[in-house]
Amino acid sequence: MSRELPIHHGSLEHILPPSWKAQITAWLAEDTPSYDYAGYVVGEGEKTATLWGKSAGIIAGVPFFTEIFKQCGCTVEWHAVEGSYIERPKDGSHKFKVATVKGPVRGLLLGERVGLNLLARCSGIATVSRNLLLSLRSAGYRGILAGTRKTTPGFRIVEKYGMLVGGADTHRMDLSSMIMLKDNHVWSRGNITEAVHAAKLVGGFAIKIEVEVQNEEEADEAISAGADIVMLDNFTGEGVKIAAKSLREKWKGKREFLLEVSGGLREDNVFDYANNGKPSSPNVHVRVIEHADHHRYISPDIDIISTSSIHQGTPHVDYSLKINQG
Amino acid sequence: MSRELPIHHGSLEHILPPSWKAQITAWLAEDTPSYDYAGYVVGEGEKTATLWGKSAGIIAGVPFFTEIFKQCGCTVEWHAVEGSYIERPKDGSHKFKVATVKGPVRGLLLGERVGLNLLARCSGIATVSRNLLLSLRSAGYRGILAGTRKTTPGFRIVEKYGMLVGGADTHRMDLSSMIMLKDNHVWSRGNITEAVHAAKLVGGFAIKIEVEVQNEEEADEAISAGADIVMLDNFTGEGVKIAAKSLREKWKGKREFLLEVSGGLREDNVFDYANNGKPSSPNVHVRVIEHADHHRYISPDIDIISTSSIHQGTPHVDYSLKINQG
Amino acid sequence: MSRELPIHHGSLEHILPPSWKAQITAWLAEDTPSYDYAGYVVGEGEKTATLWGKSAGIIAGVPFFTEIFKQCGCTVEWHAVEGSYIERPKDGSHKFKVATVKGPVRGLLLGERVGLNLLARCSGIATVSRNLLLSLRSAGYRGILAGTRKTTPGFRIVEKYGMLVGGADTHRMDLSSMIMLKDNHVWSRGNITEAVHAAKLVGGFAIKIEVEVQNEEEADEAISAGADIVMLDNFTGEGVKIAAKSLREKWKGKREFLLEVSGGLREDNVFDYANNGKPSSPNVHVRVIEHADHHRYISPDIDIISTSSIHQGTPHVDYSLKINQG
Amino acid sequence: MSRELPIHHGSLEHILPPSWKAQITAWLAEDTPSYDYAGYVVGEGEKTATLWGKSAGIIAGVPFFTEIFKQCGCTVEWHAVEGSYIERPKDGSHKFKVATVKGPVRGLLLGERVGLNLLARCSGIATVSRNLLLSLRSAGYRGILAGTRKTTPGFRIVEKYGMLVGGADTHRMDLSSMIMLKDNHVWSRGNITEAVHAAKLVGGFAIKIEVEVQNEEEADEAISAGADIVMLDNFTGEGVKIAAKSLREKWKGKREFLLEVSGGLREDNVFDYANNGKPSSPNVHVRVIEHADHHRYISPDIDIISTSSIHQGTPHVDYSLKINQG
Amino acid sequence: MSRELPIHHGSLEHILPPSWKAQITAWLAEDTPSYDYAGYVVGEGEKTATLWGKSAGIIAGVPFFTEIFKQCGCTVEWHAVEGSYIERPKDGSHKFKVATVKGPVRGLLLGERVGLNLLARCSGIATVSRNLLLSLRSAGYRGILAGTRKTTPGFRIVEKYGMLVGGADTHRMDLSSMIMLKDNHVWSRGNITEAVHAAKLVGGFAIKIEVEVQNEEEADEAISAGADIVMLDNFTGEGVKIAAKSLREKWKGKREFLLEVSGGLREDNVFDYANNGKPSSPNVHVRVIEHADHHRYISPDIDIISTSSIHQGTPHVDYSLKINQG
Amino acid sequence: MSRELPIHHGSLEHILPPSWKAQITAWLAEDTPSYDYAGYVVGEGEKTATLWGKSAGIIAGVPFFTEIFKQCGCTVEWHAVEGSYIERPKDGSHKFKVATVKGPVRGLLLGERVGLNLLARCSGIATVSRNLLLSLRSAGYRGILAGTRKTTPGFRIVEKYGMLVGGADTHRMDLSSMIMLKDNHVWSRGNITEAVHAAKLVGGFAIKIEVEVQNEEEADEAISAGADIVMLDNFTGEGVKIAAKSLREKWKGKREFLLEVSGGLREDNVFDYANNGKPSSPNVHVRVIEHADHHRYISPDIDIISTSSIHQGTPHVDYSLKINQG
Repeated sequence: MSRELPIHHGSLEHILPPSWKAQITAWLAEDTPSYDYAGYVVGEGEKTATLWGKSAGIIAGVPFFTEIFKQCGCTVEWHAVEGSYIERPKDGSHKFKVATVKGPVRGLLLGERVGLNLLARCSGIATVSRNLLLSLRSAGYRGILAGTRKTTPGFRIVEKYGMLVGGADTHRMDLSSMIMLKDNHVWSRGNITEAVHAAKLVGGFAIKIEVEVQNEEEADEAISAGADIVMLDNFTGEGVKIAAKSLREKWKGKREFLLEVSGGLREDNVFDYANNGKPSSPNVHVRVIEHADHHRYISPDIDIISTSSIHQGTPHVDYSLKINQG
Repeated sequence: MSRELPIHHGSLEHILPPSWKAQITAWLAEDTPSYDYAGYVVGEGEKTATLWGKSAGIIAGVPFFTEIFKQCGCTVEWHAVEGSYIERPKDGSHKFKVATVKGPVRGLLLGERVGLNLLARCSGIATVSRNLLLSLRSAGYRGILAGTRKTTPGFRIVEKYGMLVGGADTHRMDLSSMIMLKDNHVWSRGNITEAVHAAKLVGGFAIKIEVEVQNEEEADEAISAGADIVMLDNFTGEGVKIAAKSLREKWKGKREFLLEVSGGLREDNVFDYANNGKPSSPNVHVRVIEHADHHRYISPDIDIISTSSIHQGTPHVDYSLKINQG
Repeated sequence: MSRELPIHHGSLEHILPPSWKAQITAWLAEDTPSYDYAGYVVGEGEKTATLWGKSAGIIAGVPFFTEIFKQCGCTVEWHAVEGSYIERPKDGSHKFKVATVKGPVRGLLLGERVGLNLLARCSGIATVSRNLLLSLRSAGYRGILAGTRKTTPGFRIVEKYGMLVGGADTHRMDLSSMIMLKDNHVWSRGNITEAVHAAKLVGGFAIKIEVEVQNEEEADEAISAGADIVMLDNFTGEGVKIAAKSLREKWKGKREFLLEVSGGLREDNVFDYANNGKPSSPNVHVRVIEHADHHRYISPDIDIISTSSIHQGTPHVDYSLKINQG
Repeated sequence: MSRELPIHHGSLEHILPPSWKAQITAWLAEDTPSYDYAGYVVGEGEKTATLWGKSAGIIAGVPFFTEIFKQCGCTVEWHAVEGSYIERPKDGSHKFKVATVKGPVRGLLLGERVGLNLLARCSGIATVSRNLLLSLRSAGYRGILAGTRKTTPGFRIVEKYGMLVGGADTHRMDLSSMIMLKDNHVWSRGNITEAVHAAKLVGGFAIKIEVEVQNEEEADEAISAGADIVMLDNFTGEGVKIAAKSLREKWKGKREFLLEVSGGLREDNVFDYANNGKPSSPNVHVRVIEHADHHRYISPDIDIISTSSIHQGTPHVDYSLKINQG
Repeated sequence: MSRELPIHHGSLEHILPPSWKAQITAWLAEDTPSYDYAGYVVGEGEKTATLWGKSAGIIAGVPFFTEIFKQCGCTVEWHAVEGSYIERPKDGSHKFKVATVKGPVRGLLLGERVGLNLLARCSGIATVSRNLLLSLRSAGYRGILAGTRKTTPGFRIVEKYGMLVGGADTHRMDLSSMIMLKDNHVWSRGNITEAVHAAKLVGGFAIKIEVEVQNEEEADEAISAGADIVMLDNFTGEGVKIAAKSLREKWKGKREFLLEVSGGLREDNVFDYANNGKPSSPNVHVRVIEHADHHRYISPDIDIISTSSIHQGTPHVDYSLKINQG
Repeated sequence: MSRELPIHHGSLEHILPPSWKAQITAWLAEDTPSYDYAGYVVGEGEKTATLWGKSAGIIAGVPFFTEIFKQCGCTVEWHAVEGSYIERPKDGSHKFKVATVKGPVRGLLLGERVGLNLLARCSGIATVSRNLLLSLRSAGYRGILAGTRKTTPGFRIVEKYGMLVGGADTHRMDLSSMIMLKDNHVWSRGNITEAVHAAKLVGGFAIKIEVEVQNEEEADEAISAGADIVMLDNFTGEGVKIAAKSLREKWKGKREFLLEVSGGLREDNVFDYANNGKPSSPNVHVRVIEHADHHRYISPDIDIISTSSIHQGTPHVDYSLKINQG
């Protein structure tokens, strides 16, 4: 399978808000809550270290890693850009030179574990995201692959970032950025219409509203009430296709909405899940994570497949940091 | 002008996230950074105080006020619900009993100034918001009145809350909750289409995108690129009507979008600004801040009028807290 | 009315403590709690922006604005000093070039709203303070115009700063910096003497004590007990003059004290309020906010007029930040 | 394989320090940085929800989950103790009732995602740890199975807790709690002896010192210099046995030390790795995670096997929270 | 020497601001940054412990100690009031029962060291302060004994509190609560008058100003410029008396001011230092730390003696906490 | 007595973790919670100041002092290294030039008090530690002198640092870095063996365990259970010698352990306490605080003497900071 670099419109680093650097300070403090005894042993002589990639995967987490070392008084020079795919070199060396870190040896060791832990997890998420997206594209799916809010507490900013690097959509960041109405919300309000109207009253025009529905009638009510996205829950694969087609026809020219399906998708069941009966287009992966076809939202098929399998319990990518001897 | 209470769908207090109580702790610390000398003078005998409303206006900020006193060891019993309109009593007493606060006298004095400062400003915003909304309704406008991000640094959670109490829409809360593309963004990207596509790449399907446009051609490009909201900037009042009608017709049945106009709206120019030539419906104000007519989004007129005049530099509502003697 | 620049003894920026920069970090985080999507759209190319003054007023808040942009990676060059009065240029351009900001375009946009919101409010307070002070000087008042503790929670450091720029006195900063004994304190202690003695026991010699009194007998008791400042509460304008004169004569050569009156003063009632029957000295305003005449404390008239009208609910000064095109 | 409950000496919850509850506050804030719109929709009516276990595994994270909901105003009643093993019920229901949560519906929804995310990951680590430990016991290994510092930044307190619940040793918590001298430290100091002496100078008698060695000569030098633990790095499986035996004999009666091997251990290679040629004792697993045999430290074999495979990139245990209808 | 309890006007606990409890949380976290291993050993069974006083001294720090244990889930019952003097009981038991603490045994041990450390230091300061004050009173001094800003960083709130319990004046709390102009300030401004005027410009009427002077001419200039307190620096004991008398006469009926002398005062040189040649009044100590004679400010003698010897490097009072067995 | 500089293996500054600089920010904020009025008076002209040592002692706290001034915009050049002993110069000048500080005069004054307070206390602890250690060496003691956890809340990082500079061992930093089992823990568990086993279960192999014992039988049980350190509590001086000898013989070649005695040691009772009947070696002090003899742990005598007398209630070293005139 070909794994072209994403055609980025810019640098993902630019989505990080001013406040994220304080989180890195806290992570460093977690790893050295009291004295840094070993720092005394090694001192602050200037050294150079190499960041090695030791397993295949997508590099993700570059700005975080750079800032971790900056806070330890070190600088990082990257030899591969974020989002690029590392394969083991064919010369049998089993490792790939990803970056060079320079600074006081104590700083290199203070940043080492925090930096590697972050990079390993962020890259793991990017890698699984990319792989699943490529599989979906091969299966003919042109829509969005999105993650969920099932992230590690306190670490969401990094994990959602990994999804973006991998080409997946972050889905909503948190409870404040999109309103999602599930069965509990509907029960509390009495019906979908009431729940959506209440949500609009506080969320206003700037916040999107998604409604989880159990059947086509509920979907109709949600769309009618003003939902932006409708999630088809507990539908069979065939049921999804039928409902999607029926809803598109019914509301064509009247209301716009997105259709989402969620849950259960993994690398090993892509074809059963996403393929709509069309043969996989052999060159689909060329455009992979570009969002150029923004009109897919109005396609007869589902717009969004969301799954936590791209970020929860994913394998990590293996890196090591070795100080250059001599 | 009649000022009915809003027909609320619930309690606005329920939109406050778990973290807001820490802000109140910080506000109390600002007012007593070191010792509370006067606290020693008065001690902690149990006392009862009355919160008096001293000028006409909408009560707003109830949960904040209650929490401020809770953190000072006091309890608050409210005699008027949030969002209700206080008028000076006709018996000439010049003040209205809004709430009763009980607790150690030192606690009453520690919470007094922080509580009143918050209530005065939050109520002021709610009052101006409600008044302007009522004027707009009298002028025949059925759409949304929204605020802006021009709030006091560190106090946005209260000021946006005041807008909601007054019946206004908060507009986007911050840079993370809706993407707004203005001239600067478009210049940086080259054109509107590129800017919208870049925004979608990171914002994904869950975040709305608004584009500020200078003319109808730009509006077309924005809608075509997938903008959810289009802001007509620097249009004349007549220009707005013409553009809105033209855009609605052109995209009817093809794409949904909201139209926003912004700036310059104040209580004293409502009719010039918002009236579309239709006589003011005399009973419009009855439903005032309900969002029942959610299909207004597809009305031929503008959907949103936004203005900072409802929250920036607004007069406060006057309250006082008096400890009951004897 | 002439509006000379204040004859400053130094730079007001130098009163800001080391800790204030952390507040700015929090304000920036409030405006971008999660991702900065638009930052991705514009990137970090170097740009230059102009800060325009769009309404008449005093510039106030310079060090805060500079620090906001510094935290966003930008630098600010000021074309007008803090405390200077901006008028619309006579060339009809309707705006005044106040400063130039340079840095990565993403940084310019991250700092824009926080910086403008702060500047608008701080300048508004400085402007109203200056105007009221000038009116008082024209009315022949030589004493101090002071603000109150009725500030926006969490924003006091900026609002009191605006008062200072405008030439007003901050009055006490918080409950820890001067002890003010009002009716509640006196009731709790039994009488004024007891309350003042209790206050001195904890406040010691370094903290001033002010007592609010209802009549001349109470004023006598307060002065006798050791109050540094006496606030005449609920006195008529004439009553103030009589009491002030009487107290000055009685205690002449025995005790020093300051007299304060508070409440109800606004730009539109200056003459009724402050004028002591003497014609306004035509050249008083020349020295405006200098405190050269420190012996005014022993003048037969009141020393301090305090009012929240110079900072609560004051109109803002309008600024905008525009990135220079091309 | 039998999976008896651990014979606990007490409640693991009691190792949590007073400060950990503040981290939970931060995690809740991460998930609701601004308004809780959906909270308005559902309100604060009292409801009961069920925590369902949906995949087999060890329950871990009980005190964290309880505190998360406590901070949201809810209470949790547990139906299974921490550390117990959940299997899918044999009645085909596919889920297991783990706990009942009661409180305002808004609170249930605020805590839901943070609570489940934490429980899923903590339980996953406990499960993998327990499984690998059981395999090691079956293979005849009586020593310690330990984790590493390769944890998610900011989440170590939970992940190390999961290891403990699973019966694994946390290894050092951070750089401040044990000094580990690797190649970089030795190079910086010149030789192992110098590095150990420098470490003792600052670490004192209360902090243990571990030295990573490449061969038996280095091991001798480390033990001689006063190392408490020696890690045999890059030894073959056979080399470990030979070196361990030789070192034990040489230092018998002279110095005590622990031997650690690290890296590469996974569930699927336990026998190759840990078995020392002895047949697996069929009843070893009965005592599983008790540390009763504290003299194993002086056994001829290795004392500690450490691996990140029990906590990095481990699969999660699946839980859901459903509000009881009606 | 008689050591009567102070005649308090109230409870000193009431000067503690709302924010101080967060500092205690931080102090507890300092002592248990990671896991509380011993907490697991002891568990959370309910136990009762006794706080024993083991050396003579003044009890000080009661509200802090109570809060420390409250945060650990324990309650404290005091058997002696704050400010009382503990002597070893005459029955030879060598210890005095000060308080009873009840709660989970783990909580008792978590609070133990933080609580005792605080109490030992706070009580030590109170004891030295009281002793020196009593000596001064015996020597005929009626004025104020004050501490300085030479406190332990981060712990000032407790150390100043100890001074108050001991009957000493805290002097200024920090740089924000009184302006003190020393040689450096005067040099920077050119002369005392300029420095005082600049200080008044920003400090306003609410902040006191103290000036350090080298001779009587400088004292005159300071008083003339408006200083509230004048510190006579580098004057001989005799020089202080002469200058004080001369200044009092010169400014009698014109300006009020306080005179302070500082430095070098210790328990062992009280008579040389403070006695003005009058015999010690044998019953002066009866009123000890009452501030009843507030007119002492106008006495011919010095008003304030300040010294860091009452709080810097002072011996601690010894306490222990023992869990009651059985 | 000769006071050679310590033969350091490196710079103690290197044990400070990344997070300590935030504590300094908080300490500066404590001293200037609101405005820095005097900063306005002096401005920000560049000045040079001298740090003078005014009493004999060991300089300790260098990195903290440097960082305090760095945060105030100043730089520090040291003329004496940390750990060196200052004596009053023989030229009668009574003071010693320790460092030169340069920067804006306002910054010099902001850092002055915080810097001096820290240095005075840290140096005091280092001085008392060094002196007691020298006395012990003169008395023939070759073991470790250690401090305790009886430090000022919030200031432990500095006080333990002072012990290290003085050549003392910090003992455990906090409850998370070594497990110490005292009578309370043993009672809670039933016996020493149970308590040690419970501790090992959570502390694992990386955390040392110390047990406090009342007699030799308990010591045996503790060693047998796996204690790393045994503290002999309530033993007479002679009893310590007997028990130590007996335990060493009994466990020789079987288990390694350290013996600690604690309490009551002061400069004035060193010989009674520590001397084991051997004449003081006249040249022992030459090696003073080197830990070269790491085999002392296996000496027949005690390994560790711990006492709070080296850091609790110790006299400070006197410093002053004077701005250079002209």
